[in-house]
Amino acid sequence: MKQEKNFIVKGNICYSEGPEKIRTTEQGFAVCLDGVSQGVFPRIPEEFQNLPVLDFGQNLIIPGLTDLHIHAPQYGFRSLGMDLELLEWLNTRTFPEEEKYADEEYAREGYSIFAEDLKMGATTRVCAFGTIHRRSTEILMDCLEETGLISRVGKVNMDRNSSPGLTEESPRKSLEETLLWLEETEGRYENVSPILTPRFVPSCSDELLKGLGEIGMEKGLPVQSHLSENQGEIRMVKELCPWSAFYGDVYDRFGLFGGENPAIMAHCVWSSEEEMERMKERGVFVAHCAQSNANLASGIAPVRRYMDLGLKVGLGSDVAGGVHTSIFRGMADAIMASKLRWRLVDDSLKPLTVEEAFYLGTRGGGAFFGKVGSLEKGFEFDAVVMDDSILRSPRTLTLAERLERMIYLSESCRVEAKFVAGRRIF
Amino acid sequence: MKQEKNFIVKGNICYSEGPEKIRTTEQGFAVCLDGVSQGVFPRIPEEFQNLPVLDFGQNLIIPGLTDLHIHAPQYGFRSLGMDLELLEWLNTRTFPEEEKYADEEYAREGYSIFAEDLKMGATTRVCAFGTIHRRSTEILMDCLEETGLISRVGKVNMDRNSSPGLTEESPRKSLEETLLWLEETEGRYENVSPILTPRFVPSCSDELLKGLGEIGMEKGLPVQSHLSENQGEIRMVKELCPWSAFYGDVYDRFGLFGGENPAIMAHCVWSSEEEMERMKERGVFVAHCAQSNANLASGIAPVRRYMDLGLKVGLGSDVAGGVHTSIFRGMADAIMASKLRWRLVDDSLKPLTVEEAFYLGTRGGGAFFGKVGSLEKGFEFDAVVMDDSILRSPRTLTLAERLERMIYLSESCRVEAKFVAGRRIF
Repeated sequence: MKQEKNFIVKGNICYSEGPEKIRTTEQGFAVCLDGVSQGVFPRIPEEFQNLPVLDFGQNLIIPGLTDLHIHAPQYGFRSLGMDLELLEWLNTRTFPEEEKYADEEYAREGYSIFAEDLKMGATTRVCAFGTIHRRSTEILMDCLEETGLISRVGKVNMDRNSSPGLTEESPRKSLEETLLWLEETEGRYENVSPILTPRFVPSCSDELLKGLGEIGMEKGLPVQSHLSENQGEIRMVKELCPWSAFYGDVYDRFGLFGGENPAIMAHCVWSSEEEMERMKERGVFVAHCAQSNANLASGIAPVRRYMDLGLKVGLGSDVAGGVHTSIFRGMADAIMASKLRWRLVDDSLKPLTVEEAFYLGTRGGGAFFGKVGSLEKGFEFDAVVMDDSILRSPRTLTLAERLERMIYLSESCRVEAKFVAGRRIF
Repeated sequence: MKQEKNFIVKGNICYSEGPEKIRTTEQGFAVCLDGVSQGVFPRIPEEFQNLPVLDFGQNLIIPGLTDLHIHAPQYGFRSLGMDLELLEWLNTRTFPEEEKYADEEYAREGYSIFAEDLKMGATTRVCAFGTIHRRSTEILMDCLEETGLISRVGKVNMDRNSSPGLTEESPRKSLEETLLWLEETEGRYENVSPILTPRFVPSCSDELLKGLGEIGMEKGLPVQSHLSENQGEIRMVKELCPWSAFYGDVYDRFGLFGGENPAIMAHCVWSSEEEMERMKERGVFVAHCAQSNANLASGIAPVRRYMDLGLKVGLGSDVAGGVHTSIFRGMADAIMASKLRWRLVDDSLKPLTVEEAFYLGTRGGGAFFGKVGSLEKGFEFDAVVMDDSILRSPRTLTLAERLERMIYLSESCRVEAKFVAGRRIF
């Protein structure tokens, strides 16, 4: 196995050096040793001369993309009934579908499709929500394991304000199921690990959150949830937890807001200054989901502000609030949304650049998984080979221009090959 | 030839009956006689029993889509350098590229790619800008003619505030070239007709606009241009034409704003009440280009208001302000933008529904070409067969749901066959 992870890929290589800078190497060589990048070179360095070279010709080679926020059981109804706001959409569209995942047959069908499709895209790392159902969540983990993608998957916790079929009997029962799930899946996977997943404050009692915080602390588990997506949701949290200083303060009270164990909070469209400050202190990852926030008419998150403050930010597809699993699309949507926000809401926050969006979709989100999202020396070797030959132009394009074009027009391009931590998955 | 235009297509048929209603017929029969739809039937009516039936199985069959606004010479740099606002973008990105179309070789290369790609999409009707160059514009017309799409194409007029290479010598010279172009192309095409194309007020002197208005009147030609896209542009128009009541009043003064000869005005993001009123009086078509308006940070047009007022509205891709030629994408972007506008700008204007967006992309824009954009009896038979089988779900979807899903996820679907005015073009 190890042997397979030593090789060189050749092609037109692009990766972020930082939010403002994309490094491009035409006909470069990216060296992988034992699953870790040794860097990108214009010629093969002497010491690597004996490694096999995979030549991808004129294709583009970029780091794998990270999706920090996606709901696997919602994949089957993506793009259907996008005419409601968050809370009504959850009750009317989402919960009835998630209820079906009590049925393991249905789960197996839905999750296979989800995993197979995700495998063929440009994403190499993903943080996914399952449903409250322990067994079905394990099926999701089985399906993702097979793809070779590296993922964090969560059994969802919900014990209030949900549909009857999606409300766990009691905080205790929800915690027991969570522990059982952790036990059953321990050591079972090479590519999949668990992540604690309280859906969001409206559907988790204080007692449940407290218990999850304790499990997290004991087992050293990361957390994923939702934060300040919609104004109605924020009001609801204030009513449910009148003791809280702000929405994120609820998670923080129970040890579910970063710090020792990393946390991903999806959306953060309407975070207050205090909330931002706390996110910064705790090193919380913001999963920016621009398309979902437009589809559900939530608004536009001030990503520029988060970046200026030095928060950790990555991108999420948020299927099925978002309809596209593609993180290229996530980049393009993030740029477009930032322009509209600049024009219509607050012209002190400059729109995102292509370089910044690419950074967010690669290194920004990748950081949640460690040294991931770049082909610089020392990063895990996640690489995607993209064929953009269908995009024709009478102009001669630079490599940077081809990358820019692909970000906007990726749906026309083909993923030719994909490597995850040095393992080729197709 | 005529014989070929008598047939029946079978499949899952969807078309707009009006802005609020999509009619769906599973395994229906759409009858085409001499290029005109005879309607859609659940069974083949007695009188049509002898017509050949093309069976498209489980595919979707919808009316062809209309793109009311696209710049053919900008196709080659779509998605490159989208970090500027309109006026700076024109000077920095657009004009240098359009200048290259002085070279007929370059034009032939660029326009072939443009036309071939457009042919393979779901658009059947298109209104396209060329450049100021007469011969190159004829090359564009040649290329579009070959596709079988039905189009209106314009040689652009510009005699001020442009780059030196794109400024016609004088109003007189610009008008002479226009007349020569009209003469040279008269009777030359089956599918392509000319449309007067003053770029926009900033780049056309009063004298030029006056002359174009006279040509239009004399020859009964329609007009396409830009209107109230960007606030800087509007200020510039006010300075250039201090006598005008509002931007569109300039076109109107010279007979280029609808009335007897139809006019398409792209964008209308910032139209005043007076301007809207005049558009209504004159029956001006609004080409709504939501993606372009986001990419160039222009804003979001109040389409709901235009529809409420009874204005004529269709969709435009506005490549390369927009990066996608797909009018499905135009529908999805129109919906998303309307949601953000509702949330962030004016909650008195409800977001667009899927039904409305589909209407705009089919019948709304199609109306510019006559009875186009539906499969109702009496409409020209423009039909597109879409294979959505790549979109899998554990759910069983209704036909309406499949259509909705395709609007958002069309990039994954394949156009299986296309008919324009009863002629199959592939």
